[in-house]
Amino acid sequence: MSRPFIFPNLAQLAANMSGRRMTAVSYLVVAAGLVALVILTVDPAYEAGVEAALWACLAFFAFEWLARLVHAIRAQRGLAYALSGGGLVDALAAIAVPIAIVCGADNRSAWLLGVFWLLKLVPGVPGLRRLRRVLVLEAGSLSSVLVLFLMVLLFASVAVHVLERSVQPAVFGSLPSTLWWAVVTLTTVGYGDVVPVTPLGRIVAAMVMISGLGVFGLWTGILATGFATETRRDNFLKTWNSVSKVPFFASLGPAAIADVTHMLRTMDLPPRTMIVRKGAPGDCMYFIASGEVEVDLPGKKVRLGEGDFFGEMALLGNRQRSANIMTTELSRLLVLDLVDFHVLMARHPDLAQTIDAEAQRRVQENK
Amino acid sequence: MSRPFIFPNLAQLAANMSGRRMTAVSYLVVAAGLVALVILTVDPAYEAGVEAALWACLAFFAFEWLARLVHAIRAQRGLAYALSGGGLVDALAAIAVPIAIVCGADNRSAWLLGVFWLLKLVPGVPGLRRLRRVLVLEAGSLSSVLVLFLMVLLFASVAVHVLERSVQPAVFGSLPSTLWWAVVTLTTVGYGDVVPVTPLGRIVAAMVMISGLGVFGLWTGILATGFATETRRDNFLKTWNSVSKVPFFASLGPAAIADVTHMLRTMDLPPRTMIVRKGAPGDCMYFIASGEVEVDLPGKKVRLGEGDFFGEMALLGNRQRSANIMTTELSRLLVLDLVDFHVLMARHPDLAQTIDAEAQRRVQENK
Amino acid sequence: MSRPFIFPNLAQLAANMSGRRMTAVSYLVVAAGLVALVILTVDPAYEAGVEAALWACLAFFAFEWLARLVHAIRAQRGLAYALSGGGLVDALAAIAVPIAIVCGADNRSAWLLGVFWLLKLVPGVPGLRRLRRVLVLEAGSLSSVLVLFLMVLLFASVAVHVLERSVQPAVFGSLPSTLWWAVVTLTTVGYGDVVPVTPLGRIVAAMVMISGLGVFGLWTGILATGFATETRRDNFLKTWNSVSKVPFFASLGPAAIADVTHMLRTMDLPPRTMIVRKGAPGDCMYFIASGEVEVDLPGKKVRLGEGDFFGEMALLGNRQRSANIMTTELSRLLVLDLVDFHVLMARHPDLAQTIDAEAQRRVQENK
Amino acid sequence: MSRPFIFPNLAQLAANMSGRRMTAVSYLVVAAGLVALVILTVDPAYEAGVEAALWACLAFFAFEWLARLVHAIRAQRGLAYALSGGGLVDALAAIAVPIAIVCGADNRSAWLLGVFWLLKLVPGVPGLRRLRRVLVLEAGSLSSVLVLFLMVLLFASVAVHVLERSVQPAVFGSLPSTLWWAVVTLTTVGYGDVVPVTPLGRIVAAMVMISGLGVFGLWTGILATGFATETRRDNFLKTWNSVSKVPFFASLGPAAIADVTHMLRTMDLPPRTMIVRKGAPGDCMYFIASGEVEVDLPGKKVRLGEGDFFGEMALLGNRQRSANIMTTELSRLLVLDLVDFHVLMARHPDLAQTIDAEAQRRVQENK
Repeated sequence: MSRPFIFPNLAQLAANMSGRRMTAVSYLVVAAGLVALVILTVDPAYEAGVEAALWACLAFFAFEWLARLVHAIRAQRGLAYALSGGGLVDALAAIAVPIAIVCGADNRSAWLLGVFWLLKLVPGVPGLRRLRRVLVLEAGSLSSVLVLFLMVLLFASVAVHVLERSVQPAVFGSLPSTLWWAVVTLTTVGYGDVVPVTPLGRIVAAMVMISGLGVFGLWTGILATGFATETRRDNFLKTWNSVSKVPFFASLGPAAIADVTHMLRTMDLPPRTMIVRKGAPGDCMYFIASGEVEVDLPGKKVRLGEGDFFGEMALLGNRQRSANIMTTELSRLLVLDLVDFHVLMARHPDLAQTIDAEAQRRVQENK
Repeated sequence: MSRPFIFPNLAQLAANMSGRRMTAVSYLVVAAGLVALVILTVDPAYEAGVEAALWACLAFFAFEWLARLVHAIRAQRGLAYALSGGGLVDALAAIAVPIAIVCGADNRSAWLLGVFWLLKLVPGVPGLRRLRRVLVLEAGSLSSVLVLFLMVLLFASVAVHVLERSVQPAVFGSLPSTLWWAVVTLTTVGYGDVVPVTPLGRIVAAMVMISGLGVFGLWTGILATGFATETRRDNFLKTWNSVSKVPFFASLGPAAIADVTHMLRTMDLPPRTMIVRKGAPGDCMYFIASGEVEVDLPGKKVRLGEGDFFGEMALLGNRQRSANIMTTELSRLLVLDLVDFHVLMARHPDLAQTIDAEAQRRVQENK
Repeated sequence: MSRPFIFPNLAQLAANMSGRRMTAVSYLVVAAGLVALVILTVDPAYEAGVEAALWACLAFFAFEWLARLVHAIRAQRGLAYALSGGGLVDALAAIAVPIAIVCGADNRSAWLLGVFWLLKLVPGVPGLRRLRRVLVLEAGSLSSVLVLFLMVLLFASVAVHVLERSVQPAVFGSLPSTLWWAVVTLTTVGYGDVVPVTPLGRIVAAMVMISGLGVFGLWTGILATGFATETRRDNFLKTWNSVSKVPFFASLGPAAIADVTHMLRTMDLPPRTMIVRKGAPGDCMYFIASGEVEVDLPGKKVRLGEGDFFGEMALLGNRQRSANIMTTELSRLLVLDLVDFHVLMARHPDLAQTIDAEAQRRVQENK
Repeated sequence: MSRPFIFPNLAQLAANMSGRRMTAVSYLVVAAGLVALVILTVDPAYEAGVEAALWACLAFFAFEWLARLVHAIRAQRGLAYALSGGGLVDALAAIAVPIAIVCGADNRSAWLLGVFWLLKLVPGVPGLRRLRRVLVLEAGSLSSVLVLFLMVLLFASVAVHVLERSVQPAVFGSLPSTLWWAVVTLTTVGYGDVVPVTPLGRIVAAMVMISGLGVFGLWTGILATGFATETRRDNFLKTWNSVSKVPFFASLGPAAIADVTHMLRTMDLPPRTMIVRKGAPGDCMYFIASGEVEVDLPGKKVRLGEGDFFGEMALLGNRQRSANIMTTELSRLLVLDLVDFHVLMARHPDLAQTIDAEAQRRVQENK
């Protein structure tokens, strides 16, 4: 069996592996592997069968890594892939367990390294990018709270150590075990395995607990602030590109378009999704940035395409939707909420006229 | 007894059942049923009496469901009702317990299904719609935090399992029970039934606890951001329709009306409610969107109707309310806070003049 | 001893009792009473002495109530005072303990009612008004979260009761004690006195804990939103009245004044307070709304009065304060932060010129 | 050995001690001292060695304090330094332990005072200034929540004391130990060492727990609001001075510059830091406020200096960075995010033209 024969196939496979279906399979294997891992620690009775399953998962990950590596080498990006985050995770998933076994770890311990398979799921987590941006931008504030936290920790530990060591030498006799108590208390976990009993010790502990609430509050305050900013930014970026594709907004100047972008929300819908249900109360209207929808009018079906809008009647007085509307293909819609609709119409009377005219034309047509 | 005779009555009843009084009765029955349920689990001595009460509740719910179903069928919406959220809840309340009894469950267990009666209260919870909107819109971010949470959980569990299994095989010997510890710790619940004791295990645990604070913070940050947006939206929607009914604001252009809407707060008051108490300090003025109020001036009573305003004197220097004012019927008022009053008057000097003129006219009249 | 002789004295005293010094005495008595209360429960040895102290406190409160009541009756507002919040608290403080003793409660229990003396401190808590406004305005959202909380509680209790009652009949055998577990868990308190042990029970418990984080988040999100709004409102109200007294801002139109008000922060200072320290870095300037300050220039002392401003040089390039400045009497200052200074100067070039001119005049004068 | 000989050297040393390297040494000594401190409490076996290390640390701090003091005295600011925050911390670090030993404390207890060395790290904590400003400005609100917290605490304690004292006299028999329970519960720490068992006691406890969530929420809400304000302020201050140095923005009026300042983020980078990586997705552009960068174009290297901008192509359609760019010296960059770029270009079409023209010139040049 000569290498060139295998390599093209592998490369072929790897090329397919970035596809949607393959990712789903990969996720399933990760899930199966983790379940097997958990079972392995519970009951030695199933050990043989479970280990077979784990070997199968490992084989899959090893193959996946190899295939992707070969594909990357063929595309002249071998090293780039190998050292990228994804490449390292793939490598870790493939070789961590075998290396542990080779190094002489017992089987059950070695398989525990399979927990790194979990990292394969990271790219699939929605919104993780935004979370990371918040954490990076607020890193300064967060770490300063962390330092504050550590200082409170150390001071509290020394104080309680001094106050309690003679009464409870076993648990407050050394600083490390007192630090353990302090962490458990300051995070408001409160196991209750180590508890001060002297009056002064309890007063210090009470102050530590109240500081704990403060740390919580600071941390949350920072993250809340960061999140509010990032959410606005994300929505704006997602919507900005689509707005320019809707002719309805073309008449607006660039300043107004930035304004409108802040008001719209982007929504990506798969084919054959019901957007509007007849008779339901309506509180927003839609612009089609891409794709197509089908309006189910009595007696006929009307199709609306890129740049069209619908649902405006619910905002012009008639609060009930008058027809079912669903997508016919993968579509991106821009949603304009009732609130922003009023504001927009107020600021741009010409848009209001356009929408009014179209709404009346539609009413006429459907009579 | 022929069906046609029963059906009309049932339909009649069901039609009445959407009324306010009937809803109150329904809530009372739910409350009674749940109390009975709780008592049933406490003391077998009362079993006979309590079960009788439970059967009565069940009969009520079965009747309610049937009546509504018949009413819906008559109105050609039988299936729509049966499959709607409300319909399913009604069905569940009516048939869950009987089915359990028929399936052979013992009495006490079967009655526990009565907890589903609780779902009948859902439509009556104020603000639940807003809560749901926040959760839906922020679902992406929230679930990404949840995934993060699960990853920390699994990694922490494997690490602590490795570090503690030899010392505490009973509680850290298998991954599921270590996962239990991790959940209890990461959510800062901290029962204390399972606690790491090795130094390294405690260091990992401390890091898990601090991550717990972070998860809290992220979660809260996301929800706080979402709530701020939704609250503004709700207030705007509620107020928008009322503003246009107040002639006082008619002179404003549409852009200014959107502005004003952001400043007002809507307040719905039942008849004969005291709005303003003589001598109390005043920090807002009121516009009547609908309904009527009665001003209790010395020697005479003046009535103000839709479109009128009052309470402006407290904002024009005289901080004490000069008369009692109460509603005579169900009224909707728009409240303009002192802060926004100043801003509004500054931006629209003509409104300021109107209010000034009216205030002076009133002072003259009351001399 | 005839009444008319006592009454005037009492009324006289009560009139004085609203003064600052009397309030301080009242607070001290409350503190002393509460300390005595706590000691009474600790050690019966001190009982005699402690009770004497408690009787003294009670006598003070009874006298205070009586005096205020008489004063109010003389001012024709007897009933109004008796039924007002303050009046009821005064009454409660005066008669709760005696009534309990008369009703036959043992001494130590009766004195515990002295905890109501605490309510006397309420009017002295700063910012409580703002807190209350937030709670009132957000009552709808908060109670809807509470209802959600109760529903999760009941469903979780029934589920865990079913799953655990056969294994731990003592603690999960009845719904009330399971509800206790659910509250302890959902609030993330986690005493550990009642802990599920079955795998399914633990899975339900884990979901309850995670819901607990969500409830936290919602609650906090609502309160954070409400607080942000109220804080802005409070600052605006406090500053608004002062701004109009500063001639410097008189040249601005009313719209700009509303703008400026949002930028300023009010600061009330007692006499002889150091505001600016020579050599310290400066990042704000001050306007005097009322009162007077003394600038300690080399060789002379300059006094600035109502309407003057100072500290502007630190914002015009020279970041170090060039002189000590302190108040000579109770003064209200408006603080303009460096950030807002730049924005204000950018929007109103004429103000910038005025400040520049004054700064140069001062530099000339001090040469 | 005559004093004049030592003093100059000390002063010399102290002058150097404010340098970066010396601070790093100081931090290392603090870390080493604290580790030694912790070890001392763990195992008496290492006592001799560990104490030697502690004496060495102490000697360093004593020397540091003395050197700084001498330096300050020479610069005529001896008293100012001695009474400043930094001076007091230095003194405490130098003399707390010796004083304790002199006063007769046993060795191990005396060394525990070494925990004050921790305070030396405070100036090095990033963002602590902002944290402090938030806490100072919100002190009113925070303390009002604290008072609320204490009131709930006392009322709950008395109630549970009354309800539980007969059942659990050991733990609920006196108010102080009941207060301990209340703090542990209200902060949601929940050790579980003291738990109410009567039905009524548990109902009160449940209400305390739910109040605990509320306190959390209020606290967090206040801090979140404060943090949002301070973060905006900090960014503005940092950016304001740099913006005026960029000629690109010079054409804007002062009002627009205040606007732009709100959009930019300042970034300080050490020499030879990669800013932009070829092929990476780009979502911001950069203005050089000070320093210099090197653009690594194919075949040549171009240097951009103060006032230049780069990275604009990624915002004009081509989302991939076209070259590596790194700093050559310590540089301050102003980052303009994609979102704000669009808004800025929309509001100031002339800026858009300038950027477009420069981008086209660069494209031409690189062909």
